[in-house]
Amino acid sequence: MCELLGMSANVPTDICFSFAGLVRRGGGTGPHRDGWGITFYENKGCRTFKDPQPSYESPIARLVSEYPIKSCAVVAHIRQANRGRVSLENTHPFTRELWGRHWTYAHNGQLRGYRGLETGSFRPVGETDSEKAFCWLLRSLAARYTETPRSWPQVFRHVAELSHELRRKGVFNMLLSDGRYLMAYCSTNLFWITRRAPFGKARLLDQDVEIDFRKQTTPNDVVTVIATQPLTGNETWQRIAPGDWRLFYLGERRV
Amino acid sequence: MCELLGMSANVPTDICFSFAGLVRRGGGTGPHRDGWGITFYENKGCRTFKDPQPSYESPIARLVSEYPIKSCAVVAHIRQANRGRVSLENTHPFTRELWGRHWTYAHNGQLRGYRGLETGSFRPVGETDSEKAFCWLLRSLAARYTETPRSWPQVFRHVAELSHELRRKGVFNMLLSDGRYLMAYCSTNLFWITRRAPFGKARLLDQDVEIDFRKQTTPNDVVTVIATQPLTGNETWQRIAPGDWRLFYLGERRV
Repeated sequence: MCELLGMSANVPTDICFSFAGLVRRGGGTGPHRDGWGITFYENKGCRTFKDPQPSYESPIARLVSEYPIKSCAVVAHIRQANRGRVSLENTHPFTRELWGRHWTYAHNGQLRGYRGLETGSFRPVGETDSEKAFCWLLRSLAARYTETPRSWPQVFRHVAELSHELRRKGVFNMLLSDGRYLMAYCSTNLFWITRRAPFGKARLLDQDVEIDFRKQTTPNDVVTVIATQPLTGNETWQRIAPGDWRLFYLGERRV
Repeated sequence: MCELLGMSANVPTDICFSFAGLVRRGGGTGPHRDGWGITFYENKGCRTFKDPQPSYESPIARLVSEYPIKSCAVVAHIRQANRGRVSLENTHPFTRELWGRHWTYAHNGQLRGYRGLETGSFRPVGETDSEKAFCWLLRSLAARYTETPRSWPQVFRHVAELSHELRRKGVFNMLLSDGRYLMAYCSTNLFWITRRAPFGKARLLDQDVEIDFRKQTTPNDVVTVIATQPLTGNETWQRIAPGDWRLFYLGERRV
């Protein structure tokens, strides 16, 4: 299994604190030694840092943990390989363009019988079930909406229906973002928390690090973090029920 | 104008030395203050580091200059904005999937009358003439080869024909790679050099740094570097004539 991490915020916010917790699981406190990746959106643009090395040992992961890249939408993943060997092309997140926007996706779980999924012109580059499922999702969306859609929540509702189909093939925990919206689909484990004023302190479960959000935020900030398992011990994380999903837009829950 | 840098090698090779020369031009010795990016291929996978900040001041550029990421195909770019504002979505290189491979592209120059270029399902995310031209190239290739092509040099010959058309719209110096091949199309300025045994020393033009390639290579290594302007002063770089192009495969010239 892999670990997922997502963030949605109403002001550009860095994810150093949460990412520091996640990378510890990448071969440190967890068994996820087979690569990691993180995508930051800045308006319509995005950039991805990824490495097939364990995050715990990666100089690039150290840079990302320490260098505050501020973003309103982040998708991150650390991998324990099941389908597909350890290589850069099999390392999440995956990003593809659709309707003139970059779509970024990361998957936790394992699928059976995925090879027959039709992907049309969205051909996978690597060998993972995850990328294949992503290409199938995009192809299904492109077929349904030949023009740029007008109602985005409706698009994500359709993604949820497609995700139900994928979940029937195995385990499908998934994060998806177009840089504005962040969707979390839960097959087994996904938790989220929205932090807003009055901000308090938080303490990582995976290492002895505490943060005082009051020192890093303004009273209007709204920041939601989504993760496979709660990252902090002194806050209450909401669990998404298996087969359910959430949609966030600039930090606020929409669905 | 912008600066381009490409590398093609028969063994995974780091580009720290050449990139160190390039980043100095990003607001240091040159005027290219509007972002930079570099894409490294590792087999079919690739990863891109990019920043809308000047490379000269970027902590990410420092990481890339110092951390030896070894690759057989690299495309890099530093930008002086002309069309399209300074933002992440307008920062080169651009990568898109076609025929199950990642294609990476960077452009130096400026085009007129590019807005009418038909891009089909390859929609630009940003506003640059460069990305629009890339989407048009990919759409033209996808239309010509509906199945994965068998002769890759022929594909690049077709790209050269399309590039001639783009050159009629202004200045179009361009690097394109699928991770195996690296193509360089020259509109005004592009130089290349192939280094092989017996290796010697090289000295950067942009800062007082010398490298002894004998210490970093084996006798079978073949490494080609392509740049808008020669990066070293004590070696002989080949100039590509305006309207001409070169194709490299694992360090060796093919066209």
